[in-house]
Amino acid sequence: MTDLRRDGAAALEWAARYLEGVRDQPVLAQVEPGAIRARLPQHPPANPEPFADVLRDLDQILLPGITHWQHPRFFAYFANTATEPGILAELLAATLNSVSFIWRTGPAATELELLTLDWLAELLGLPQGWHGHIEDTASVSTIAALAAARAHTGKRIIVCSEDAHSSVERAGRLLDMPLRKIPVDDAFRMRPDQLDLDGAAAVVATVGTTSTTSIDPVPAIADACRSAGVWLHVDAAYAGSAWVCPELRGSAAGVEHADSLVVNAHKWLATPMDCSCLWTRHPDALRKAFSLTPEYLRTPETAESLSDYGPALGRRFRALKLWAVLRCHGRSGLQAMIREHVRLAETFESWVRATPGWSICAPRPFSVVCFRKDDSDEANEAIMQRVNASGVAFLSHTKVKGQFVLRLAIGNARTTEDDVRLTWEAIQNEAKPDR
Amino acid sequence: MTDLRRDGAAALEWAARYLEGVRDQPVLAQVEPGAIRARLPQHPPANPEPFADVLRDLDQILLPGITHWQHPRFFAYFANTATEPGILAELLAATLNSVSFIWRTGPAATELELLTLDWLAELLGLPQGWHGHIEDTASVSTIAALAAARAHTGKRIIVCSEDAHSSVERAGRLLDMPLRKIPVDDAFRMRPDQLDLDGAAAVVATVGTTSTTSIDPVPAIADACRSAGVWLHVDAAYAGSAWVCPELRGSAAGVEHADSLVVNAHKWLATPMDCSCLWTRHPDALRKAFSLTPEYLRTPETAESLSDYGPALGRRFRALKLWAVLRCHGRSGLQAMIREHVRLAETFESWVRATPGWSICAPRPFSVVCFRKDDSDEANEAIMQRVNASGVAFLSHTKVKGQFVLRLAIGNARTTEDDVRLTWEAIQNEAKPDR
Repeated sequence: MTDLRRDGAAALEWAARYLEGVRDQPVLAQVEPGAIRARLPQHPPANPEPFADVLRDLDQILLPGITHWQHPRFFAYFANTATEPGILAELLAATLNSVSFIWRTGPAATELELLTLDWLAELLGLPQGWHGHIEDTASVSTIAALAAARAHTGKRIIVCSEDAHSSVERAGRLLDMPLRKIPVDDAFRMRPDQLDLDGAAAVVATVGTTSTTSIDPVPAIADACRSAGVWLHVDAAYAGSAWVCPELRGSAAGVEHADSLVVNAHKWLATPMDCSCLWTRHPDALRKAFSLTPEYLRTPETAESLSDYGPALGRRFRALKLWAVLRCHGRSGLQAMIREHVRLAETFESWVRATPGWSICAPRPFSVVCFRKDDSDEANEAIMQRVNASGVAFLSHTKVKGQFVLRLAIGNARTTEDDVRLTWEAIQNEAKPDR
Repeated sequence: MTDLRRDGAAALEWAARYLEGVRDQPVLAQVEPGAIRARLPQHPPANPEPFADVLRDLDQILLPGITHWQHPRFFAYFANTATEPGILAELLAATLNSVSFIWRTGPAATELELLTLDWLAELLGLPQGWHGHIEDTASVSTIAALAAARAHTGKRIIVCSEDAHSSVERAGRLLDMPLRKIPVDDAFRMRPDQLDLDGAAAVVATVGTTSTTSIDPVPAIADACRSAGVWLHVDAAYAGSAWVCPELRGSAAGVEHADSLVVNAHKWLATPMDCSCLWTRHPDALRKAFSLTPEYLRTPETAESLSDYGPALGRRFRALKLWAVLRCHGRSGLQAMIREHVRLAETFESWVRATPGWSICAPRPFSVVCFRKDDSDEANEAIMQRVNASGVAFLSHTKVKGQFVLRLAIGNARTTEDDVRLTWEAIQNEAKPDR
């Protein structure tokens, strides 16, 4: 029998040592596809095994197959962090195991979710009175927002820029809503002069695109949407967290006119996966898209059920981790983390600019630096693969104006200037002609 | 600063005491809507607070607003359990915080998910070679399956029985796929003689409906689907777990012909929310519905990415908890739990049948008993509300042939025969004419 105290103490010790030692692991898992599975039993056990065996196999078999998102030199995609308050809150949420599909099945979970989303709206400087709830990912938040836009407007076309996240196209396919892509300008921003809203249900404007963290001109797009009666969904999944710092709120201009907004607290706000925050000024439109109460879910209370706002019926107690993170970091703690990440990105950018033979490839409004060696695409890709294979750091790439470009995404709370320096040295080292 | 060892020990002790004492809590939260929120600060803190304060407020403020899904007398909806191995695995998953949207971002998470779904398929006696992965809820698994059916068949109509779960209708609305509802027979099973497959993309057949746990005639439906080239999705979200016991596999007849199947391990298989298992014989159809690889996600490996099989891109390391549960319970442990629940339901059913003035309202193939007092709907509803308000047990209801019917759903691993007896006594007591 698994004992929560005895086995829990061992699991907690494993977790603490993991976080203390993660810096010494190769960031990107150094395994071939299939290697982890091949080391595990192909059939389930007939009889109970001790939890200690699970912990042993996690350590000995799975660990080499783990890409360490908690590593301070994880610089790929959008780097993130699960800090201690959120980790412990997940333990508590799993212990409670509440499934809050209607209010009475989780009154505290429901009300805490609404409250923490109000708290976060206040921290980010969003308008008062928006309705906020949590979905698992920005992909699903966007699906919910676009379904609401369709229900609200009766139209079907989704408009976004060429540089919008692939989840918008995936959502369109799921919802059977055709996509219209608008070209971007030289700074990778949607061109409002090219905006065609004919038949449009929604525009998805992005603050902080995945490729270059460019910022669509939301004020102009909002004006056009308002005139045309089109829903404006703002995807600030990564960059919205920056608004906790007043000096970074320039990028929030126009967002106050959005009909819906997604910010992932699990990206740049220290909260463990999954915590995608979706706000709307039209909760009625989300309910129109999703609400459906069969007999077996009818209850006497007049109280909000958060499953009326998205695709899933069952809902974990995700608010607990966001509440713990907002409280244990506080506004000042979150600001300090974001500011340090932006400072480190600025520093890295200055190093690249100061080095002959290297170029910055896009403006850097937040904590992601797009850069490349003045060489072929193949040479740049090879540099990235060698850095990643070394285990020192994990970078990812994008294409900018047809060229292969490296991305250094800073977003882990444990990242120091030394980590960034070591990574820049590794990149330069792997770029030497004799490699 | 939150310290994982110190604050973690306190959180773990809270969790252990919670589970030890949950039996003494009122099952259904005894609060009015808004009461929990009113006791919490309306604004987020400016500066960091200790994690101990979070734990204190969880205990003092939130606890009264928690409906205790872990309570042994939680008999509403489908009762579930998060047992210790899964709880601790969630702590570990949050510590690792991997976001496995493509293989290289989580090789171990990806391969363990495929392996554990193969393990579970073997435990449930499913055909070999199906492709399995985890979604958060059956709602989303069904959305994924129906999107695949649409992509595979090029058709749009969804066919299900009147008693199919409301998530099928919600999925149809999201996917813009019209629903055709087929009448049920006297035992609440879809009538195959009424099956109209004209224009149909998919039939959703249910094994264990939410209302009465009735079983659609899957073999006949499967034959009709095969002839007509229609996708067969089997919703066994609750009852599929029963197949771990060979003597309960009669209800799996025909499921081997399904194109997709959903079983929620977080319902009756001891795994914490969220762990909805979706298998398919046509992984290509799921990829056709969902796969889309933008430049920034291209990698050199030829390896499967599980985000190609559902709406979400980012994916938590959910397989860890299912793996821990399957190992620490073993086949024999899971069988023992399921058998005990079925035995308790049989016992409760026999008590109801032996009591004058009470009736069983539907066949009981698994662990859910549908019953009512031979009295008005209002009287039955009042009985249920009084039992729930007493905190002794939590029941929910359904409508069966137009009548208000009580449901006793057994599914919590801590439930004993004494819990069931105490609940039956409470029900009879609240049904006395002088109440």
